[in-house]
Amino acid sequence: MPRTSRPIRLAELAAFLGSGCVVEGDETLEVSGFASLGQADSDELVFIRDPSHCHALESSRGAAVLAPLGVDIPVPGAGERGNRPVLRVPQPSTDFSRLIQEFAPVPRPAVGVAVGAHVDPSAVVAPTASVASGVVVGPGCRVGARTVIAANVTLGAQVSLGCDCWVHSAVVLRDDTQVGDRVVLQPGVVLGADGFGYAPDADGRPVAIAQRGRVVIEDDVEIGANTTVDRATLDETRIRRGAKIDNLVQIGHNCDVGEDVLIVAQSGLSGGTVVARGAIIMAQSGTSGHLRVGEGAFLGARAGVHRDVPDGARVFGSPAVEEQSWHRSVTALKRLPDLLRRVRRLEKSAVKSGGDGSASGGDSGAV
Amino acid sequence: MPRTSRPIRLAELAAFLGSGCVVEGDETLEVSGFASLGQADSDELVFIRDPSHCHALESSRGAAVLAPLGVDIPVPGAGERGNRPVLRVPQPSTDFSRLIQEFAPVPRPAVGVAVGAHVDPSAVVAPTASVASGVVVGPGCRVGARTVIAANVTLGAQVSLGCDCWVHSAVVLRDDTQVGDRVVLQPGVVLGADGFGYAPDADGRPVAIAQRGRVVIEDDVEIGANTTVDRATLDETRIRRGAKIDNLVQIGHNCDVGEDVLIVAQSGLSGGTVVARGAIIMAQSGTSGHLRVGEGAFLGARAGVHRDVPDGARVFGSPAVEEQSWHRSVTALKRLPDLLRRVRRLEKSAVKSGGDGSASGGDSGAV
Amino acid sequence: MPRTSRPIRLAELAAFLGSGCVVEGDETLEVSGFASLGQADSDELVFIRDPSHCHALESSRGAAVLAPLGVDIPVPGAGERGNRPVLRVPQPSTDFSRLIQEFAPVPRPAVGVAVGAHVDPSAVVAPTASVASGVVVGPGCRVGARTVIAANVTLGAQVSLGCDCWVHSAVVLRDDTQVGDRVVLQPGVVLGADGFGYAPDADGRPVAIAQRGRVVIEDDVEIGANTTVDRATLDETRIRRGAKIDNLVQIGHNCDVGEDVLIVAQSGLSGGTVVARGAIIMAQSGTSGHLRVGEGAFLGARAGVHRDVPDGARVFGSPAVEEQSWHRSVTALKRLPDLLRRVRRLEKSAVKSGGDGSASGGDSGAV
Repeated sequence: MPRTSRPIRLAELAAFLGSGCVVEGDETLEVSGFASLGQADSDELVFIRDPSHCHALESSRGAAVLAPLGVDIPVPGAGERGNRPVLRVPQPSTDFSRLIQEFAPVPRPAVGVAVGAHVDPSAVVAPTASVASGVVVGPGCRVGARTVIAANVTLGAQVSLGCDCWVHSAVVLRDDTQVGDRVVLQPGVVLGADGFGYAPDADGRPVAIAQRGRVVIEDDVEIGANTTVDRATLDETRIRRGAKIDNLVQIGHNCDVGEDVLIVAQSGLSGGTVVARGAIIMAQSGTSGHLRVGEGAFLGARAGVHRDVPDGARVFGSPAVEEQSWHRSVTALKRLPDLLRRVRRLEKSAVKSGGDGSASGGDSGAV
Repeated sequence: MPRTSRPIRLAELAAFLGSGCVVEGDETLEVSGFASLGQADSDELVFIRDPSHCHALESSRGAAVLAPLGVDIPVPGAGERGNRPVLRVPQPSTDFSRLIQEFAPVPRPAVGVAVGAHVDPSAVVAPTASVASGVVVGPGCRVGARTVIAANVTLGAQVSLGCDCWVHSAVVLRDDTQVGDRVVLQPGVVLGADGFGYAPDADGRPVAIAQRGRVVIEDDVEIGANTTVDRATLDETRIRRGAKIDNLVQIGHNCDVGEDVLIVAQSGLSGGTVVARGAIIMAQSGTSGHLRVGEGAFLGARAGVHRDVPDGARVFGSPAVEEQSWHRSVTALKRLPDLLRRVRRLEKSAVKSGGDGSASGGDSGAV
Repeated sequence: MPRTSRPIRLAELAAFLGSGCVVEGDETLEVSGFASLGQADSDELVFIRDPSHCHALESSRGAAVLAPLGVDIPVPGAGERGNRPVLRVPQPSTDFSRLIQEFAPVPRPAVGVAVGAHVDPSAVVAPTASVASGVVVGPGCRVGARTVIAANVTLGAQVSLGCDCWVHSAVVLRDDTQVGDRVVLQPGVVLGADGFGYAPDADGRPVAIAQRGRVVIEDDVEIGANTTVDRATLDETRIRRGAKIDNLVQIGHNCDVGEDVLIVAQSGLSGGTVVARGAIIMAQSGTSGHLRVGEGAFLGARAGVHRDVPDGARVFGSPAVEEQSWHRSVTALKRLPDLLRRVRRLEKSAVKSGGDGSASGGDSGAV
């Protein structure tokens, strides 16, 4: 679907990808877009990830194909399109994506502050930034160069946004939030809401503890739609450089999410959780408060973590345990009904052979 | 609570419901609203679903009652309101709802583009559509006849909305999203956010794979508040005709949700999940990537699905298994502490009767 | 981080906190802000919760310290800052928070309706309320004294908001929603979306049941970011006085959430759930429909509740069981692989000693 602004020769694509890329066939062929095997038009580049896609390639209308090194592509003459050129690359998914981003980038909105945006006079917006209609920018905000703020975004007071960010519609950044460079916030993200902190008053009723810290988002972070990151009670909730967070994730107050961490959809971190660099948290997981997920650790989908996870550990289940224990438990659990039958038999046998009769008492026949 | 614009005779209500509906009692009686048994005023219609409601009916102030065929209603003279007329219908819940929608419809906002809406000059909005204040409509959008767009909604570029849709406030439809007819989007829905796709770069850091496909919503789909549906990497994420999705659900990139599928709140579909026609996914369930949930399948609440679910299967638990296995496991699990005791007894008994002493070694006394 | 508008003497802070607070040291010392031990400037008040913080206190730059009664603070002369004054209080967290709220309150936006807000002429907004740019207020709404409505909030028709509320950005209150006094709604909250109610039509396709009740939020309720509370089918979904709800929670139609209830992030209540006063629902829990969670009950994180929970009960797991049963099951489950081995030994032993050979049949060697 992404279309280029002009026809591009394969030689130019290969030059952009660099020395790891080799063209097999006519490198003067031009393409005008990028598409999947099934949806391609006859002037578009397609890609295959591995040999299993070769069959679908035969019926694709794509003009040329990006393919991994060493994978055998149907030879010229094999089918109508058998003779199409091949761009050989080390990492087809990533390289195809790089081509799209370079030659068919997402259109940028016009630079400047649109009609119907409301920017406080004390805010400083870079002249190359784009601020769409319906955006409200509070007092003391700073918006960096080339940053795009889509329609109906709200920045509270003293919010700082770096350069080359893209803040999608309906995002809310409450007061004092700090965002670095090249950060992407999908629609509906909320940064800086009050954390969930209550203490009982004299009558035992919950009373809010003031939540007056802030949220800090470092460079190259990306956050998914409708995800929420709460401000710290004091100090900071921090998402470090390069972390990627999916949709509908909850990050509690005072969390510290490490560099290059991945957190998949609908997971939640309780207040004060530390996730060290490079950890991966799969979907619908949760951590209880004030624990540490170690560097490079892996939490399987739906893990419920109640204690620290060591560096590099892989944990599964809820309560989460190390991978091997979890597999054993899951396997054993499946065999449990059978085990009940076997124990009943042993009990009967024990009675017959004169063993301790009490072993078969009570509920032994109730399975 | 819903009130009619004028008093309506029971005969008119019965005529609207059609041949399956019979009036017992005075069909010239007029009602002016619809209410629950407990909240009804004396000019309102109430309904009962089954005989268990008859007791509450006696103390209700409702003027008349909609009731299922064959259920015995308190006879005239039984209490002050015993003589109220009865509309006999096959499906009281549905029929009561149909009466409300026909005779006390939700008020529609004024037709046209309100002050404070920002519609790009290149967008085409049907003259019978309603576009509220704070709405931003991007370039190239199309909005169909009688569609309502509530305040503070954002449509990106090239978004297409069919006829008779209702898009509630703070919804965001990112670029290229296509929506059919009679679609309802509750507040805060996000369609077309980038999918969560990253690949490691040369330094092992996650880099975003371009997400440049789109979201397609077919006719008669309804999507709940703050639910997110990600655009495809290439191609489409598709929600098919008549599917109903609850609040806070996550639909990953490239999913295909079948006709008339129901997905209950806080469930999540990983990228590339196919849910076939008529399947039901109960609350807080999740699927791992690139699997298929079969036609008419049923996922119990909080199911965690890691492999294909056959057509018509019913699965429960996490990792999810067929219903019967799950019940057996849950039952067996409850008996597990008892089983530990029984095995310990057997081990003692085996020692006494001269069996292999090793059976009682180690932790046998540690329960 | 929170700064006071003027320097405040410790004596004034102590007087505000009341008779339970005693100053040790120089009560004429002035502070100008509040901070954590690690982040404090030399004119700020810090606090410690318990003796474990005393070590960090030594290196803190804070001017004075709030501390619990009876905890030994490093004496004058112990380190550069050893001689700083101490405010002794019964509840350091709560009391520190009270000081912040009193002496360094969150700045309030200007009173009145801002440029770029759209208030229907039939709405009544108190002159002391603040309505920010991008807010849309529908017909028949009422907004109480001193209530703050932040940018890009939407109030539908006939919405009622009490006094001293704070409605953060991008919140949506659909038609007929009623909100009491001192209510706080974090960004992205949706109140009054249609409940998820469908019934099959003649062809078996799901058709929406009209959702025409409303949402009622009583006084002193606080609701977290992107949480959704659905309107009732008829009647009301009610959140009672003082309940606190965290981020990304789903409250289904016709629920009744009791006074002072706490519901932690990403939990969900199915339609018609009743949660009695003072219950606590930890993160990522769920309840199936039409059940009751008893007064003061406790649901552990990730609990899946399928039946009524008695008053005061503590339940864990999914399906949730009483705490003691759950601990037994979790412990037993860990021992299950070992149990399989032990039963196999018993079976071998039974064969050797001439017991019923059938006990060792089938899969006994398959662990």
